[in-house]
Amino acid sequence: VTYELFYWPTIQGRGEFVRLALEEAGAPYVDVARGPGGMKRMMAELDGAMYAPFAPPFLRAEALTIGQTANILLYLGKHHDLAPQDEQGGLWTHQLQLTIADLVAEAHDTHHPVAVSLHYEDQKPEAGRRAAEFTANRIPKFFRYFEHILAGREWLVRERPTYADLSLFQVVEGLCYAFPNATAGLYGDYPNLAALRDRVAARPRIVAYLASKRRLPFNEEGIFRHYPDLDQD
Amino acid sequence: VTYELFYWPTIQGRGEFVRLALEEAGAPYVDVARGPGGMKRMMAELDGAMYAPFAPPFLRAEALTIGQTANILLYLGKHHDLAPQDEQGGLWTHQLQLTIADLVAEAHDTHHPVAVSLHYEDQKPEAGRRAAEFTANRIPKFFRYFEHILAGREWLVRERPTYADLSLFQVVEGLCYAFPNATAGLYGDYPNLAALRDRVAARPRIVAYLASKRRLPFNEEGIFRHYPDLDQD
Repeated sequence: VTYELFYWPTIQGRGEFVRLALEEAGAPYVDVARGPGGMKRMMAELDGAMYAPFAPPFLRAEALTIGQTANILLYLGKHHDLAPQDEQGGLWTHQLQLTIADLVAEAHDTHHPVAVSLHYEDQKPEAGRRAAEFTANRIPKFFRYFEHILAGREWLVRERPTYADLSLFQVVEGLCYAFPNATAGLYGDYPNLAALRDRVAARPRIVAYLASKRRLPFNEEGIFRHYPDLDQD
Repeated sequence: VTYELFYWPTIQGRGEFVRLALEEAGAPYVDVARGPGGMKRMMAELDGAMYAPFAPPFLRAEALTIGQTANILLYLGKHHDLAPQDEQGGLWTHQLQLTIADLVAEAHDTHHPVAVSLHYEDQKPEAGRRAAEFTANRIPKFFRYFEHILAGREWLVRERPTYADLSLFQVVEGLCYAFPNATAGLYGDYPNLAALRDRVAARPRIVAYLASKRRLPFNEEGIFRHYPDLDQD
C-alpha cells in the first residue's frame, strides 16, 4: 500500500510528525499537496462526506481516511511496529504523544495567542507576553518531564524507537529553531533529552530523510517560527 | 474492577469527559481527589516513577495507569463498548474526540491566552481579543463541522452513543454556560447538534448523574467560565 499524506505543502507543521513516522517505517507514501493538482485534491477532501477531517494532516490508507496527527500515529504505530502491541505499551506511547501534542499547540500559540485568522504582526504584544511565559516556564516543565522519563533509558517506551520518540525529536528540533536562546541549555540541562534527539537524528532512514528534499526547512509560516522578539535575550 | 479517577476536586474540567464515560458505562469508580486524603495521593502520583502522567486527569485501572483525557477514553471505549471495535470505527471515534479536545483547549485559552500560571484578571485585554475571535469564528467553525457530521444521524459514529457523543455533549454544555449570547442560536442554527445534546442529556444514567452530587456545577475555576466581558453582546 502506498499511503497518501495530505498536508499543507510549504511547511513542516503537524504533517511532519506523520512524515517522520512514515520515513522511519520505510513506508511508501505520496505527499499529495506537494504534487501537481494536490492542493485542489486536499481541499476537496476537506469538503467531503463521511470521515471528513476537520483539518490537515490526514492520511489515506487504502479505504481508510484518518485525521488528527496523534490518531494517524496510533494507526501507523500498530501497522509498522512503531509502538508496542500490548495494551499498556500502546496506551503509554499514545499518552506521551498527546503530551507532545499539547506542547506543540502551546508552541504554536506563542506567535498566535489571539487568533489563527490574524497575522503574527497583528498580535505581537500578546505574543510577546505568551512567549515570555512559554520560554520561562512551559518549555522547562515539559523538558523536565521527558528528561525524567528518559532517565536510564535510550528510548521513551522500549528498547527501540516508537512514534513518540520521533515526535519528541521533532518538537525539540522545532523549539531549538524557534527559541535558540531559551533552549541553549538543552545539552547541559537535559542530557537525556538531548541524547534522544541525537539518537533519532542518527537513525539511517531519518538521516537520509533529513538530507532529502522531502524535508522542508523550518520557516516562519509553520508551527515553530524564529522570531527573535519572542526568544529570550 | 473499581476504577480510580484522579482529577482536581472542585471543577468539571477535563476530568468531566472521563466521568461522563464512566457514568454512561455504569462502571464503578472512585473520584479519588474528592475523598479524604485524595489530593495528597494525586499529587504523589504525579511525582511518580514509570507511567507518570504529565497532568490530571488520569485513571487507575488495576495495574494500568492511563493519562491524557482522549487516551483514557480510548481505553474505556474499548472495554465498555463506548466505541466500535472495528479499526475504522475506532479511529473515527478517536479522531472526533481529538477534534473536540482541540475545541476544549481553545475554549480554555479564551480566559488564559497568555499563561496558565497567571490569573484571568492579569490577562483580561488579551482574553477579550481572543474570546471575540473564538465566539465569532471558532465556535461556528467547530459547530458547523459537527452539525454536518450529524446530518441524518442520531449519533456521531453508529446507532448508539460513543464516548465522542458524550464529550460533544459536554463541550456544548460548557460553551452554552460560558458564552450564553454567542451560543444563543444553537437550537436554530445547529439543530442536529442541539438534538445530540438533548439525546445525551436524556440517557438514563446521564440523567441520574447530572442530578447527583457527583456532577460538580460549572464555575469560574474550570475550563468553561462565564465571564460576561468575554461573551458577545
